[in-house]
Amino acid sequence: MEDLKNLAIKKLNERGVTLDDITNILKNIQGGYRELSDKECMDSILYVVSKREAIYTILTGIALDEAAEKGLLDEEINNLITSDNGLYGIDEILALSIVNMNGSIALTNFGHLDKVKPGVIGKLDKEGKEGSRCHTFLDDIVCAIVSSAASRIAHNIEKK
Amino acid sequence: MEDLKNLAIKKLNERGVTLDDITNILKNIQGGYRELSDKECMDSILYVVSKREAIYTILTGIALDEAAEKGLLDEEINNLITSDNGLYGIDEILALSIVNMNGSIALTNFGHLDKVKPGVIGKLDKEGKEGSRCHTFLDDIVCAIVSSAASRIAHNIEKK
Amino acid sequence: MEDLKNLAIKKLNERGVTLDDITNILKNIQGGYRELSDKECMDSILYVVSKREAIYTILTGIALDEAAEKGLLDEEINNLITSDNGLYGIDEILALSIVNMNGSIALTNFGHLDKVKPGVIGKLDKEGKEGSRCHTFLDDIVCAIVSSAASRIAHNIEKK
Amino acid sequence: MEDLKNLAIKKLNERGVTLDDITNILKNIQGGYRELSDKECMDSILYVVSKREAIYTILTGIALDEAAEKGLLDEEINNLITSDNGLYGIDEILALSIVNMNGSIALTNFGHLDKVKPGVIGKLDKEGKEGSRCHTFLDDIVCAIVSSAASRIAHNIEKK
Repeated sequence: MEDLKNLAIKKLNERGVTLDDITNILKNIQGGYRELSDKECMDSILYVVSKREAIYTILTGIALDEAAEKGLLDEEINNLITSDNGLYGIDEILALSIVNMNGSIALTNFGHLDKVKPGVIGKLDKEGKEGSRCHTFLDDIVCAIVSSAASRIAHNIEKK
Repeated sequence: MEDLKNLAIKKLNERGVTLDDITNILKNIQGGYRELSDKECMDSILYVVSKREAIYTILTGIALDEAAEKGLLDEEINNLITSDNGLYGIDEILALSIVNMNGSIALTNFGHLDKVKPGVIGKLDKEGKEGSRCHTFLDDIVCAIVSSAASRIAHNIEKK
Repeated sequence: MEDLKNLAIKKLNERGVTLDDITNILKNIQGGYRELSDKECMDSILYVVSKREAIYTILTGIALDEAAEKGLLDEEINNLITSDNGLYGIDEILALSIVNMNGSIALTNFGHLDKVKPGVIGKLDKEGKEGSRCHTFLDDIVCAIVSSAASRIAHNIEKK
Repeated sequence: MEDLKNLAIKKLNERGVTLDDITNILKNIQGGYRELSDKECMDSILYVVSKREAIYTILTGIALDEAAEKGLLDEEINNLITSDNGLYGIDEILALSIVNMNGSIALTNFGHLDKVKPGVIGKLDKEGKEGSRCHTFLDDIVCAIVSSAASRIAHNIEKK
């Protein structure tokens, strides 16, 4: 799994998302509650990204984005994915496989991030809508990673 | 089921939530997209509330709120429910039985509403935190009804 | 949506699954409760397959199966999908977008069908494991359609 | 949380479910794959039961069963819970808060166990249907614990 985890992080990078981008969003949304160190944020992101379900979701979602971007799929489904219609909904479902593993705080955070689109999430959304790239699945995956990491931090603080 | 639906609406009223309260939130959050008539909003709310899963969720959630408010449960779980701790999470899970039936737009709306708490949702939250009433399950149920109705409207607009 | 529904059914056919195959499984698993006519079963299957979420799930899942079968994806994720490893899990998650819309009976039926693999589900599983075809997503989608249709029938019988 | 975990296990015992009962089901359903020691099974059960979401679900579900058994809730919802109607569905939803944390194998196992009802699950179901006790929520919670523990074991074996 260690190899696959590194591959997932490499694919995120190739598609324009660094772990620092994700950590920055996490730091901002958590800022209201408590000062978090960069290390705490990064540890939490890495914990989420290391789980088998997260790795498989990242690799599958990016594979769909790339295949649609290259026009490899049947015309109709290719168009559905590249146009990122708000009613398509399969991107959110896929991202749930990360969110579900991390409890109900992850779930409410996920819905909220998907609306406000901070940081790199907004950048992905904008690039996708301009039509040069397809990030239909990736932006929801980033939302799922951040919201899951935030949920984990909330649980850990409570324990102390 | 018609009798149980009317009972669910009656229980909502008894706990301080009218269908008009719910319709008002729906109208506000949808306002950004398109002018909606009161009738469209109310029809959508009634459609969501008429489903068996929604009726059972409303009756069960309110039963838990009322039992905890009266102190009828074992001390520890009674305290967990009345204190509405952010990590309790069972209230969000229960509300998902409504949200899940209505697609992924319902899900992202749900997370967002749970954060911003507009209208009667904020009122319930405040009353619950003051300690006089227990609305731990009810506020999430209202979020679920509104977000599901919003999802239904989005799907119907698309069809036209 | 009517065009997309017909496309989804056509894609199911192309991948070796007819609506009659699906109806047959439904008839068998429901046989224990009550005699169902072929028409009732087919109507219920068509109801499930006509929903937007089901159509998108069918088209996306089959697109992934076909892309992996042709070797169009990056090597690692392509292998993960074609080998249909029991821990991959993204196929079940995708199928949940159909199951979730149809209540908790759909959910328990889904898990059960995924274990016993009756009729065309077993055929797809066998073909996939022999390596000639990739049905990693399709077999779970068929489980989801049957279990959702069974849930719908149970709800309708109760109403009478 | 350690106190709450012990309370959850104590409540399970009071309602007729020992950790050994749960471990026995796990051992039987896993037997097909590999010989598992009692210790491996018990460790996996304890891992699942120690998570915050599982503890809260156990305490809440048993609180509902006990309140309904004593007739403490409004008549209609009290009857819905004690009669354990197959379409009630809120018991399965609540149990999902345990299942979701443990991946998609947990989910398919859950649906299967809910159908075949091995060991203490069948005993709870029978007692509930005889009307002396109310185990509407508890039997699904036991299904959720076993299926989640089985999922965890499958993931661990794969790692070796």
